[in-house]
This record gives sequence, structure tokens and C-alpha cells, in this order.
Amino acid sequence: MRDFLPREVRQRQHLITNFRQVYERYGFEPIDTPALERLEVLLGKGGDENEKLIFKVMKRGASLERSLQAQDELADAGLRFDLTVPLARYYVEYQSKLPRVFRRYHIGPVWRADRPARGRFREFYQCDVDIVGAASSAAEVEVILATADALEVVGFSGFSVKLNDRRLLGALLEAVGIPSSLEGSAVIALDKMDKMGMDGVAKELAERGITADVIERLRGFVAAGIAELAVQDGLASFEKELQKLGVEKPPLDDLRQISADIAVARGDKLRLTVDPLLARGMGYYTGPIFEIASREVPFSLGGGGRYDELLARFGKQSIPAVGFSIGFERILSIMTEREMFPVELGGIDVYVTVFSAEHRAAALQIAEQLRSAGFDVLTSVLLGSLKPQLREADERGARFAIIEGPSEREQGVLQVKDMKSAQAQLVAKELIVDWLFERRVSA
Amino acid sequence: MRDFLPREVRQRQHLITNFRQVYERYGFEPIDTPALERLEVLLGKGGDENEKLIFKVMKRGASLERSLQAQDELADAGLRFDLTVPLARYYVEYQSKLPRVFRRYHIGPVWRADRPARGRFREFYQCDVDIVGAASSAAEVEVILATADALEVVGFSGFSVKLNDRRLLGALLEAVGIPSSLEGSAVIALDKMDKMGMDGVAKELAERGITADVIERLRGFVAAGIAELAVQDGLASFEKELQKLGVEKPPLDDLRQISADIAVARGDKLRLTVDPLLARGMGYYTGPIFEIASREVPFSLGGGGRYDELLARFGKQSIPAVGFSIGFERILSIMTEREMFPVELGGIDVYVTVFSAEHRAAALQIAEQLRSAGFDVLTSVLLGSLKPQLREADERGARFAIIEGPSEREQGVLQVKDMKSAQAQLVAKELIVDWLFERRVSA
Repeated sequence: MRDFLPREVRQRQHLITNFRQVYERYGFEPIDTPALERLEVLLGKGGDENEKLIFKVMKRGASLERSLQAQDELADAGLRFDLTVPLARYYVEYQSKLPRVFRRYHIGPVWRADRPARGRFREFYQCDVDIVGAASSAAEVEVILATADALEVVGFSGFSVKLNDRRLLGALLEAVGIPSSLEGSAVIALDKMDKMGMDGVAKELAERGITADVIERLRGFVAAGIAELAVQDGLASFEKELQKLGVEKPPLDDLRQISADIAVARGDKLRLTVDPLLARGMGYYTGPIFEIASREVPFSLGGGGRYDELLARFGKQSIPAVGFSIGFERILSIMTEREMFPVELGGIDVYVTVFSAEHRAAALQIAEQLRSAGFDVLTSVLLGSLKPQLREADERGARFAIIEGPSEREQGVLQVKDMKSAQAQLVAKELIVDWLFERRVSA
Repeated sequence: MRDFLPREVRQRQHLITNFRQVYERYGFEPIDTPALERLEVLLGKGGDENEKLIFKVMKRGASLERSLQAQDELADAGLRFDLTVPLARYYVEYQSKLPRVFRRYHIGPVWRADRPARGRFREFYQCDVDIVGAASSAAEVEVILATADALEVVGFSGFSVKLNDRRLLGALLEAVGIPSSLEGSAVIALDKMDKMGMDGVAKELAERGITADVIERLRGFVAAGIAELAVQDGLASFEKELQKLGVEKPPLDDLRQISADIAVARGDKLRLTVDPLLARGMGYYTGPIFEIASREVPFSLGGGGRYDELLARFGKQSIPAVGFSIGFERILSIMTEREMFPVELGGIDVYVTVFSAEHRAAALQIAEQLRSAGFDVLTSVLLGSLKPQLREADERGARFAIIEGPSEREQGVLQVKDMKSAQAQLVAKELIVDWLFERRVSA
């Protein structure tokens, strides 16, 4: 787990503020849920897969004693490992207080007891938008547009979105001859296409018990080059190829509607393609799935899809839902590497030195006056000579340092030192605010 | 632990944004640390007191197996219970990358395995400013001014700050005859003065083994009315009373300097008093301690003090430090009760209805155009009639709803419905952005 230096916190904050603003612009609302959830919420039915990921929190006091003696489960809660499971629990719990169509965003930490690796952390942020309660593919369009805008606002461009649909993938896998008992396993293998390419995936599919002829038929879908086509042609090819395999009416309406809507809203700014083998790892997807990339980076910046059955785990009925998650930590590290953050993030405007103990009152008054005018001002708490104070001003990225010694005081002026040029000039004390405003010191 | 509805998240966010801005205005920098810390960091030496508070996270895999067999400690990490202990660990660890005088703020969740009660939660936010590395009482002045400003900016006023000094309190307790072995225990009892008054405190002191005559001498300090006096008179009385008890030179210089500085910087806007029995519960304070209240509320809104020895726990040497913590959850609940939040928090500007499937493209284009102009816009994903769409517009607090049906389309206009007055009017499609700007729709 990581500590963050001030510069890093500001960069993270810069992302969060920008993402939040875009999501609000689309009418998404923020929620928050506790870090700890009951284990039964986190584990669901098929708990085994996730159990390994969860940091478990021990029972306490008498309840712990009892469990120790009975050799029972020692933990009853765990740290959340994503933001989607808490959303599902939350929506079902507060449904009566929420709009029927609930658009929410959630940017916050999650915890996974993975082995840490480059770019993988045990505590990391997720950044999700979801729409719960809308069955129409108009909801997919909203989360896709909002996500592209969020990425654009922090400096990415040239977006492309890969589309697929779990129902089409399911039909494809069935048609090439994968038994339904192996479908989940095949999806997990296919999800590694980005990392391993078709050869790696083929090897893993074989390991998972899928026969060579089936794998060759899947290869056919890569070879057909559907993923290279513009979306409308891609959809037509996909349909044709599926029909060749005997799928008479592939459910392509949703992808057609989504791509038509996005073309209208965004035109060429958002390139769409169909990727018949796009899988998305999570087991809960039920309809359209998608990933977004940008011209600048060769890999996915986020992904999502429709999961119409997940909420039924917490309530009595199925409730349609669709979400799009931005890879927060990945984007942060790309932006850091490529210096995509604004340079001025977090510098202070003015450093007020304290010439000696008896000048302290005046320094405090100057600082008060400048803060009231909206400047970020640091008043020295270093006593003694000016040199370490000016060093601190420099260290903290101050644009100007203000010095009022005995001679300045006598003349009613302040010495203002430009920390970049090291030039100093005298400014009448009563004009200091105007003088700074004229120099466009950020305020 | 609590879930938060969108309105509540926005209120919390409103506080955080405002506090952050004030702290930045004083040159404080943000840091972040993980939710989980190693248990040895959290427990320190005298671990017993805090151990009860800590949510412990279980070891995993083989390491858990070994500990179970050896009947060893089953946890090696825990959720942080405050932000001060992590700061101390952090500062010592990153000292070489931080300014010598490190001003930091940290607003974030902490976890305590307390029994939940009204206004007490197992997950709650703390909001701290601290200055590490400055021995001068100028640092106390900075954290006090910043805290008062932070509270002012969210709507509080008429601040008063109670001052005391752990060294004075120590001298007082010694002088009235409390043995040094009972000093810590007496401090814990005195810290409950706000809740229980002097009679309650006297009872608890007696239970803790302090004799009746000693307690009576302490009562003398309440009866002397020092806490009622303006700060300079209060300090003089405090000195006189301590001298009466045989304390020859009470260390009052820091409080004198702090109160002189604050009088210069803030004048009458910040009332100061001395409270000789102000204790602040935490054991780590070593110098000036303080609490802030406002005219509007009868109890403390935050507290802090100097803790020059805490950092030595993590490094080799003592490093001076001082901090001020705002009672985030308490302030939030006061502001909610008294409706101190801005009314417009989080409403959307425009709701774009979709008249029918074939009008969807046009609706998306209108929404895009309005978002580009800076408006918060929700596009309906409800298909079918307008009625549920307008209901949603109302539910979500939209200021205007836009309708483009066949007749509007034919005329090149939009029907714009004011959701408050329910008045509708027709606006030429190409003028819609200007029309909204003229009505000062927030953007």
C-alpha cells in the first residue's frame, strides 16, 4: 500500500475533480458506502473466486472468543474489493429514496489482497459511473459519452470504443462448439487477449479443455478482421459470420442502436469498432460490453457493460443496470509518465517572511490582507535570518516573497521578490494587492 | 457504518472542498496514507488503550495457518483510528522529501471499533491541519487562524478559542497535590468537563483515587473565574493563582505570544480565553492546547495542541509538531440540522426529454450542445410518454426541461419548461444557449 506525497495527492485530486465535474454534467449523482461490508455481501453465492481477494476484518471480543472455540469463521466483515457490489447492495437497500432511473458515480478506494506488482496495488481507486433501472440501450450511450468526456477533460483524445455483447459472445461460443459448462472458463481466457494475443489465448483455452478444432473456429473470427472495420460494416460482418455458424438471428439491435446514437452525438470524435472476441472478465455481464482506448495509449483506459442480473442477488427481482469504469490508477501513471498534469498544481502565490520577532505582527497582517484578496499565502514560522525563509519560499514554489525589514517599514513599502527571476522591487504597502493582481498571480 | 445518499455526499463534499481551499490558502499541503497500517504502528508502546479501538485485519494464507497453530496474533494490520499517528510515521519515513517545516492537511476516513452511539460512528471523517518541524508558537497561530477561517467559510462565526498549556496543567496538578502517577488519569477525567461539569469531574476524580482536599483546590480554579476573563487578564490571573500554589515561574510565554499574535491578526473577530482546566484527552500533548467554539453552538467544534514527543516514536529524535483537528461529523450534523448548506447543491440545469425513438438523435445533439456550453444536463433514457420524464426532471431538481416534439421540430423551436413555475415557452433552437445564459442558469 502506498503513501502519497503532496504533489501526488494533488494529481489524484486533479483527476477526481475533473471526472466528478463531467459526471455531474451528465446528471450522475455521487454516493458513498463504507469501506467495510459484511462478508456475505462481498462473497455472494459463488464466493470462492473473490474470497482470495478480500482483506477480512476480525470479529471482536466475546464473538471472537466463541468463534475461536468453535473453530468457526473468525471474520464477519471485509474491505470492499470493487464499487459495483456495494452499489448493488445500496440500490436495493435505498431504492425507495432514489430516483427510479438512478445515475450514480463513485470514485473511491477499494482493497484487494493480490500479490502487489508493477501497476497493481493492494489499495487503489476505482472510478465508476452506472445507471440502474434503465433497460434501454440509451443508458449505454450515456455512460460511454460521459466516460469519453471525462478522459478528454484530463487530456486524452482520439478515442475508440470496442463493442461486443455477452449474448453475441455466448451465441458465438456455443456455435463454435464450446459446451455451456466451459463458457465461463472460456470467457476468462478470452479476456486476456490484450495481454497475450490470440496464440496465448489459444494455449490457455486448450489448457482449459477446449478442443483444437473449436479453437480454430474462434481464430476464424480474428482472421475475419471484423475488429478492423468501422462499426456498421463490422456489425454486418459479425452478423454474416455468426449466420455462417448457424446463429440465425444474432441479437445485434442494441449494438446497432448504441453505435447509431454515438455517431449522432459525437460523429468522428469517437471511433467505434466491434470486437467479436471482446470478453470483459467479470461473470456478471449480460448484454453489451465495451472498452475505451485513446490514440495516445495502446491499451484499454476503462471498460464496462450491462449487468441486468447482479442486483437480483440482493433483492427479489432483476433490475437492469449498466456501468463504465475508468482505470484510475493506470490513467494516473500514464499522465505522470507523459507529464500531462498542469504545471501550476499546488504552488503558493506569496511567501511572507518575518524579518524579526518585532516584525511578526505586521507580517501576520499582510498575510491576512492577501488571503482576503484570495491569494494562497504562507507566513513564515521560521525565526531568525531571511536566508532559510527564502529557501523555504523557493522549495514551496512561491511566486513572490515579501520582505518588510526596518528600512521598508520606514518608507511604507514592501520588498517583493520574484522567486523565478530573483528580481526584487519595492511596492507601496497599500498597493500590494493591486500590484499582485496586475501580475495575474493566481487567486 | 453508514451509506450516504447523493445529497449527503454533496454536503460532505461541500465541506471538504471549502476546508481544503482554506488550508491551501495558508500553504498547507495535502497528503494521503493507506487505510491499513501495521499493528505495531497503530499500537505504539502503551498499546492497550488504543487496542480496543482498532479493527484488525487478518493475516492470510500460510501465515494465518502458522499463527493459528502457534496460537499467535492472527492479525498484523489494522484500520487507522486517527490521522495523527499515520502523519508521524509518514513524516519520519519521507522526511528527506518534505520541506523542513511541513504544513500538511488531511481530510479522510478513520475507523474505530467503538460501540456506535448518537453522533458516534465506526467509520467517520477527520479533518486535520498540522505543522511539523517548527518549535515556535508561530505554528500554533497558523493552525488556529486556518481553522477559524475554515469554519467561517462554511458559515460559522463569532469564534472563541480556549487556551491552556499541558505544562501549566501539569504544574497545576502537581501543585494541588496530584501525584505524577495519577496525572494521566486526572487529565482523562478533566477532559470530560464539557459533558459532565465540575461536579461530575470531581466525582470521577474521586473514583480515580484523588483525595477530596485536592479536588477542592482544583475547584478553586473554576471558582476563580479565570475562564471568564479576556485572555490577557486571564493569563495574569492564572499566573497569580499558580504562584499562590507555589509555582514560581509558570511557563506562560507561549500562550502570551499566541494571544498577542492572534489579536493582531484577527482583532475582535476571534475571542480568546484561558481555561486552566482545559485538558484535551490525548496523552501525547506537550505544550499549548486549544479548542474552538462559535457563537452559534454551545460546544467545541475542534481541538488541538502541540505534541513535540510523538514523532520520536518512529524516529530517533524528537521533532516539534502542532495540530488542530476539526470535528467533521459534528459540524456536518449541526449544519444539516440548521440548514446551513447552500440550497442549490447538486441540482441539474436542464433535463432533455426524448419525445419518441426517432427524436432521440436530436435530443442527444441538444444535450451535447448544452454541455459544451457548461450546463449540467440530463438526457432521458426513459422511452415512451413525456409524463414520467417530466416527473424525473422534477425529482432531480432540474431548472428547465426541454421538449422537442414533431410540432416544435417543424417550427425549428424548442419548448422550454420552467420546472418551478411550470410555465412553458418556445425558444428558437439556435438561441437556446443564449436564452439559458440570460436566465443565469448556473453553468
